[in-house]
Amino acid sequence: MKAAIIGGGVIGGGWAARFLLNGWDVAVFDPDPEAPRKLGEVLANARAALPALSDAPMPDNGSLTFASNLKEAVQNADYIQESVSEDLALKHRVYAEIQHAAPDTPLGSSTSGFKPSELQQGALNPASIFVAHPFNPVYLLPLAEIVPSIKNDPKLVESAKEILREIGMFPLHVRKEIDAHIADRFLEAVWREALWLVKDGIATTEEIDEAIRMGFGLRWGQMGLFETYRIAGGEAGMKHFLEQFGPCLTWPWTRLTDVPEFNDELVDLIAGQSDAQSGQHSIRELERIRDRNLIGFLRVLKDSNWGAGRVLLEHDARRRATAPDPSPDTAAPMVMAHMQVLPGWIDYNGHMTESRYLFASSETSDAFLRHIGAGMDYVAGGHSYYTAETHIMHLGEAKLGDRLTGSVQVLGADEKRLHVFIRIEKDGAPVATLEQMLLHVDMAKGRACPAAPEVLARLGAIRDAHAALPRPETAGRHVGHQTGRGKS
Amino acid sequence: MKAAIIGGGVIGGGWAARFLLNGWDVAVFDPDPEAPRKLGEVLANARAALPALSDAPMPDNGSLTFASNLKEAVQNADYIQESVSEDLALKHRVYAEIQHAAPDTPLGSSTSGFKPSELQQGALNPASIFVAHPFNPVYLLPLAEIVPSIKNDPKLVESAKEILREIGMFPLHVRKEIDAHIADRFLEAVWREALWLVKDGIATTEEIDEAIRMGFGLRWGQMGLFETYRIAGGEAGMKHFLEQFGPCLTWPWTRLTDVPEFNDELVDLIAGQSDAQSGQHSIRELERIRDRNLIGFLRVLKDSNWGAGRVLLEHDARRRATAPDPSPDTAAPMVMAHMQVLPGWIDYNGHMTESRYLFASSETSDAFLRHIGAGMDYVAGGHSYYTAETHIMHLGEAKLGDRLTGSVQVLGADEKRLHVFIRIEKDGAPVATLEQMLLHVDMAKGRACPAAPEVLARLGAIRDAHAALPRPETAGRHVGHQTGRGKS
Repeated sequence: MKAAIIGGGVIGGGWAARFLLNGWDVAVFDPDPEAPRKLGEVLANARAALPALSDAPMPDNGSLTFASNLKEAVQNADYIQESVSEDLALKHRVYAEIQHAAPDTPLGSSTSGFKPSELQQGALNPASIFVAHPFNPVYLLPLAEIVPSIKNDPKLVESAKEILREIGMFPLHVRKEIDAHIADRFLEAVWREALWLVKDGIATTEEIDEAIRMGFGLRWGQMGLFETYRIAGGEAGMKHFLEQFGPCLTWPWTRLTDVPEFNDELVDLIAGQSDAQSGQHSIRELERIRDRNLIGFLRVLKDSNWGAGRVLLEHDARRRATAPDPSPDTAAPMVMAHMQVLPGWIDYNGHMTESRYLFASSETSDAFLRHIGAGMDYVAGGHSYYTAETHIMHLGEAKLGDRLTGSVQVLGADEKRLHVFIRIEKDGAPVATLEQMLLHVDMAKGRACPAAPEVLARLGAIRDAHAALPRPETAGRHVGHQTGRGKS
Repeated sequence: MKAAIIGGGVIGGGWAARFLLNGWDVAVFDPDPEAPRKLGEVLANARAALPALSDAPMPDNGSLTFASNLKEAVQNADYIQESVSEDLALKHRVYAEIQHAAPDTPLGSSTSGFKPSELQQGALNPASIFVAHPFNPVYLLPLAEIVPSIKNDPKLVESAKEILREIGMFPLHVRKEIDAHIADRFLEAVWREALWLVKDGIATTEEIDEAIRMGFGLRWGQMGLFETYRIAGGEAGMKHFLEQFGPCLTWPWTRLTDVPEFNDELVDLIAGQSDAQSGQHSIRELERIRDRNLIGFLRVLKDSNWGAGRVLLEHDARRRATAPDPSPDTAAPMVMAHMQVLPGWIDYNGHMTESRYLFASSETSDAFLRHIGAGMDYVAGGHSYYTAETHIMHLGEAKLGDRLTGSVQVLGADEKRLHVFIRIEKDGAPVATLEQMLLHVDMAKGRACPAAPEVLARLGAIRDAHAALPRPETAGRHVGHQTGRGKS
């Protein structure tokens, strides 16, 4: 699949990164001679961030080319995304040239403010032009507002939404076109109020940012406005909340009825305050801090299968469904997990922290248990394998962003016990090995019992195949065990 | 220290919980006969959530009493927080009664909208009344807007801010009083715009919430409005951003110049949409989901020492500074860490996931290394202890909210090696034991070397004291080791 990215700035670059890292070929057109450098920087950020959200193997990157003209960029493209400046006449000229070469290809615009009917004015094929408005950083935030007009082909819009889901996004279908769509209307409202507060000397840019991120900003990353207020209403519900707070609407709680004059004085005031607030960090540093925080938030939501985290889980499931079975039951350790070292896995030494090696091993053994039919459904039935004992050897250092694999070798198994040897490897060399004894338990009774026959059959076949493997040298070792290398 | 909480609803209850869990005695006055039940529910939520943010031992809870009148509640209080309904006449009556008994005690109001000068009208002592506006859930979100008027005693305001820092909050000093302070002006702006969008049929409550939480809401939990836009401006900075987006102010991007009529029709429309969106969850469920997500976000920020996370780290440091030294170097395992099982530590079996036992052990050994002088400063100097090998025995089950301790017994130590036995205990009984061999390394050369003399001296004293301890039964055990309990 091929995406054409028209305009290669921060937004266009974010789109390019999302498509590339999800396995699409990408052709970029941007007449700016600096475009390849700028796009390279966005792509470097994205490569360090987006894979950290995935727990399924990522596809191989697509190929990136810079086209020398619009026609070349859109040729054979399955999807076109336009992210040029917010200048309607410019957008119309670009669309005319694009549609001359590819009139029927879905053409999404990153516009923050223009309505689709405005974008479609005078177009060769208005039916294929729509708004696909993303949020910076495009490679991490899932939201894309999809706004069609009545002139759009509904089937084409649906297929575009499906493409965006394929690259991990959350297409929010805006059913009626309106200036600034939905999210930017809120941003604009807050922006206007913030300008007044700064101009009137009520608060600095830093104080305003603290008022947001120490309070309601944390709420809005996981529930929006209405769900938050629903909770505030308590068991009496939304209606109760509305009846309490409705009357405040007429109170003088905002200065929204007016717009501050946007002059040099205001610009200097804000720019100066912003420098005082954030000037100690370069923009690149701020981007890295932001991305690390966003990855953390998104992974929290993924753990709770909530909001943007649900989008990530669905994206993993979609990818896993198309991945081949991990490995056949032959005389070879079975590679059961692919992982990447995330920011939260690093300790103050700058290396992967020791407990994360056991975490990587758990991911591996969990996948193995699913493979033999003892996954979540089995646990829901009241039985599970519990780890009784583990021996870990630390053999190398994993660092941020390293790709790891986890493989399982079965050393022994009977009705109640499972003895495994797990290798966590980087570039084919072990960074840690873990020997474990697991017990099959009746969870209600809290004691060991024989596993189900179908699990034992599956496990027995693997145990018998693995019997031909050499026993790992360090199996059976205790802490401080004598080796040739030194004395205990 | 004693706090008087006047009004025991969701907000008053949140304040009570913050004070109690931070070791303050709390007296609540609320004439509602249901108040003890309601406050109990908030307190149960807080107990399950707030300790999860702390990595320093929490103080013992203070005592909670329900006062039969205002006078009794405020007697001997060091701080008074008023959270009654948003009715100015009522607040004035309450203040008169409070100040009759305690005229000089700091008296913060949770008001969302009233200015301090309005609150102070007719007061016996206006100098001690100020706005201390928190955000729900009060026990998790750090923000408290502190708004004094010119009539306030600056010293009293500073001491009130210090009290709020002591209970883990971030007091944001609002320098000029204004209706709705700072944050609620933004909330009001977004609320008005959202009401228009729902009323005009552009978007449902659910679509609006998705537009927030899938995009800019995630940004605002960790950076505010201005820092986010600073990044959007790229290396050219804030001024560049302003010059690009300034002109949009006059575009028709919001309907803020008007207020929708707040009638039954609009209430029913919103309440109905909210039911469709969130009605499958009870308010209690939504609260638990929200709290879990917020704990996750806050811990992400704590990991990166950023925003609200920095507030948490500073709060821990403050608490650690006043905590007694963990234990003397006598012939007893040294309790080095106190922990609580967090939501993210639980696996699909409902128990603490296996890698978190090693994590708890790492927290314990890190504290031990700090104790012998091999902490972060030592690592910054290029030396560190690396774990070479670990043996874990799982002996019990830890569950969500369980309090754990981690203790260290030194089994052996020489210039380069440290052999320890760590017990992770719940209610005095081990849930896991971990035997570890650590190597002292020169990090640049990547190989073992002798530790610094002062570290060895400290460690040697402990090793010699611990030599008198019985050797743990399971030390030296390998996986699958024969025991009296069964065959390998």
